[in-house]
Amino acid sequence: MEHLKRLAVLADGEMAPHPSKTLAGVLRYRSDRVVVAVDRQHDGRDTGDVLGLGHGTPIVRDVAAALEHGPDGVLLATEPTGGVLHPYWRDQILQAAEAGLDVVNGLHTLISGDERIVAAAQRSGARIWDLRTPPVERYRTPLDADGKPIVRVREHRPGTRTVLAVGTDCGIGKMTTMLEIERESAARGLGPAFVATGQIAMMITGRGVPVDAIMSDFVNSVVEDEVCDAVREHDLVLVEGQGALNHPRFSAVTLGLLHGTRPDSMILCHDLRRPAIKLMPDWPLPPLKRAIEINEEAARWLWPDGPARVVGVSVITGAVPDEQARAELARITEETGLPATDVLRYGPGPLVDAIMAGPVAS
Amino acid sequence: MEHLKRLAVLADGEMAPHPSKTLAGVLRYRSDRVVVAVDRQHDGRDTGDVLGLGHGTPIVRDVAAALEHGPDGVLLATEPTGGVLHPYWRDQILQAAEAGLDVVNGLHTLISGDERIVAAAQRSGARIWDLRTPPVERYRTPLDADGKPIVRVREHRPGTRTVLAVGTDCGIGKMTTMLEIERESAARGLGPAFVATGQIAMMITGRGVPVDAIMSDFVNSVVEDEVCDAVREHDLVLVEGQGALNHPRFSAVTLGLLHGTRPDSMILCHDLRRPAIKLMPDWPLPPLKRAIEINEEAARWLWPDGPARVVGVSVITGAVPDEQARAELARITEETGLPATDVLRYGPGPLVDAIMAGPVAS
Repeated sequence: MEHLKRLAVLADGEMAPHPSKTLAGVLRYRSDRVVVAVDRQHDGRDTGDVLGLGHGTPIVRDVAAALEHGPDGVLLATEPTGGVLHPYWRDQILQAAEAGLDVVNGLHTLISGDERIVAAAQRSGARIWDLRTPPVERYRTPLDADGKPIVRVREHRPGTRTVLAVGTDCGIGKMTTMLEIERESAARGLGPAFVATGQIAMMITGRGVPVDAIMSDFVNSVVEDEVCDAVREHDLVLVEGQGALNHPRFSAVTLGLLHGTRPDSMILCHDLRRPAIKLMPDWPLPPLKRAIEINEEAARWLWPDGPARVVGVSVITGAVPDEQARAELARITEETGLPATDVLRYGPGPLVDAIMAGPVAS
Repeated sequence: MEHLKRLAVLADGEMAPHPSKTLAGVLRYRSDRVVVAVDRQHDGRDTGDVLGLGHGTPIVRDVAAALEHGPDGVLLATEPTGGVLHPYWRDQILQAAEAGLDVVNGLHTLISGDERIVAAAQRSGARIWDLRTPPVERYRTPLDADGKPIVRVREHRPGTRTVLAVGTDCGIGKMTTMLEIERESAARGLGPAFVATGQIAMMITGRGVPVDAIMSDFVNSVVEDEVCDAVREHDLVLVEGQGALNHPRFSAVTLGLLHGTRPDSMILCHDLRRPAIKLMPDWPLPPLKRAIEINEEAARWLWPDGPARVVGVSVITGAVPDEQARAELARITEETGLPATDVLRYGPGPLVDAIMAGPVAS
C-alpha cells in the first residue's frame, strides 16, 4: 500500500473526546499522505484546529464529500469495540470502493470478508489492504535437503543493536516512543530500521507484521524472521512492541514478540495516569522496577547470560505542568536508575543515548 | 467426532523406530475405539506386538484393506515435518473419504483445504474433523448493553483446583501425565474434568481447544473460557498443557495458556534423556529448580500473591533399570523438595496426593 499517497481518513465519531489511536498515529506521523478526514461532527473544520495534529487537513462529512479532494484510498481510523464495524461505516467504505478507492483496514474484522465491498472493489479496480490478515504464507517450517525441519534460531549480526519497546500495559506509548526514537536516530545518522508489529505502525511505515493476528504457534518464528531480515541490513533495529507481559489478555502476544525479537535492549513505556490495565480496573499495573524485572526475566528464560536489559523509560506525562512532569521523570530515574523522558514533550534524546551506550549483539 | 467408535488409524511409516506421538497417544488411551491400524511396514501384525500398545489391534497395509474391518473413520496418526502430507497419505485419505469414512486430522495443514478430498467427502457424506482449525467463532469480545467491551477475567469457583501441566520442553509427557492423573483422580472419586489443549488429547477425549492454532490475540481469553466452563461444573480441572516458557519457538503459546488457565497448582514434566530443546541442541533445558521458578514467576505476573505453585514433578525415566529410575526420582525430590514419579512406571499417585494437598481457588 506504499503507493497510496492521497488518503481519506475515515474517522466518523473518532475525534472527540479523544482521537482514536489510529487517527492520532496516522495524523502525527503520516499526515503528508492524508488529503482529507471524514467526521460528521467536525464537518468543515481542520484536524489541526480540532486535534492539534495534521494541520491543514480539511474535515468533511462523508466519503462523497471526500471524493472532491481526489483521494486514492480510504483508511479506517477506528477501533470499534468488539471489532465489529457499524453499518454506517460499512456503507461509507462501500461507497469508497465503488469509487475506486483502495481500502486500508487494521481491524481483525477483515473487509475482504465483506462480499458487497469486495464485489464493488472488483468492479472498480480498488484493492483492499487488510493489515490484520494472518500471514499464513509464513507459517511453514523450512526443511533441509533430507526433509528434516530446520529449527535453528537465526543469530543477530555481531555489533548490531535490536531494541524492543515493552510496557506496563497496551496502548501506553510503545509505537510513538519507537517512532520518535527512529526519527531522532535517523537524524543522528544511525540509519535505523523500524519493524512495525501492529496495524497502525504498518499504516504509517507501509510494512511490518501484525503480531497479534499470527497463529500462536508461529508468533516467535515470524517475528524472528522479520527482525533478522532487518538486522542483516541495519546496525540499529527498532521493534515497535505490543501488549504487556502482565496483561491478562495479551501476554501471549508480548512474550512471543520478545522471544522472537531477541532484543539487546528494551525501552519500558508507561503512562503516569494509568493505575491499572486499561478497561480492567481490578488489575493494577506493577511498579516500574517490577515491570523492568518482569521483562528482563522473560528474556533470561532464553538467554540466561544474555544482555537484554531495559535501558530507559518512556513516560506519558499527560497534561501536568512542565515542572511537575520534570519532577516525575526525575523521580522515575531515581527509582529505576534509568533515563526517563516524555518523548512528545522533551524528545527521545536520552533514550537514544542509552540505547547507543547499551548492549550490542555478540 | 465423539460418535466415531470404529477408527482406522493411519500410521504408515509411523511405527518404527518409535511410534508417532499421535499413534502412541491414541493407542494408549483410546484403543477401545480403534479397530485397525494401517502401516505397510508391519502389515499382518498386531500393534500390541509391535508397539506394546493397543493389544489386539490388527495392522493392515492400506485403507482398502482397513475397510474390511468396518471402520467409521480414519484418524491421521502422523506429524510430518513442516506439516505437509506426503502424496501417498493424501491418496489414502481420499480413498477413505470416498468410502464414506470421516477424517480426523490434527495437523495445521487442514484437510478441508484439499478440494479433491472435500469433494469426495461431500459425495459420500463423510465429515472432515480438522482439529487444528482456528476457533474464529470464539474470537469475539463480549459487549455490555451500552456496546462497551466486557474484559472482566472470569473467577474460579472458590474451593476448586485447577491444575496445569508445564514442562522443560515440548513433547515431554504433559498430556500423558495429565491423562494418568485424570484416571487416578477419577478412580479416587474426585470427578475430574480434563481440558485438552492439543490435537492428540482432543482425539482422545473428543473435545478441547487447539491452543497453538489460536490467533495470538485470543489465546488467553479462549483458554480462560474453556477452563472456566470446566471449573463451573467440576472441583478438579486438569489442563493438559502445551510447549514451554523456555522454548524459543513456542513460548507464546505456553504463556497464553498459563495466564488463561489461572492454575492453582502446576505439575512440571521432564524427560531424563533430554539435555536440550528437541531438535535444537544449542538450547539446553534449564535445571528443574529453575524451570519451576520460571513457571511460578510467570504466574506471579498476574497474581503477585496468588497460590500458583508447582507441586510435583512428572519424569520420563525411559529404559533405565528400576533401581536407577527410583534413584533419579529420589534425587529430583531432594533437588526440588517435591514429589516425583514416572507416571507410566510408578503411577501418578504422588502427584494426585500433592494436588489435593495443594492450593485451591479462593
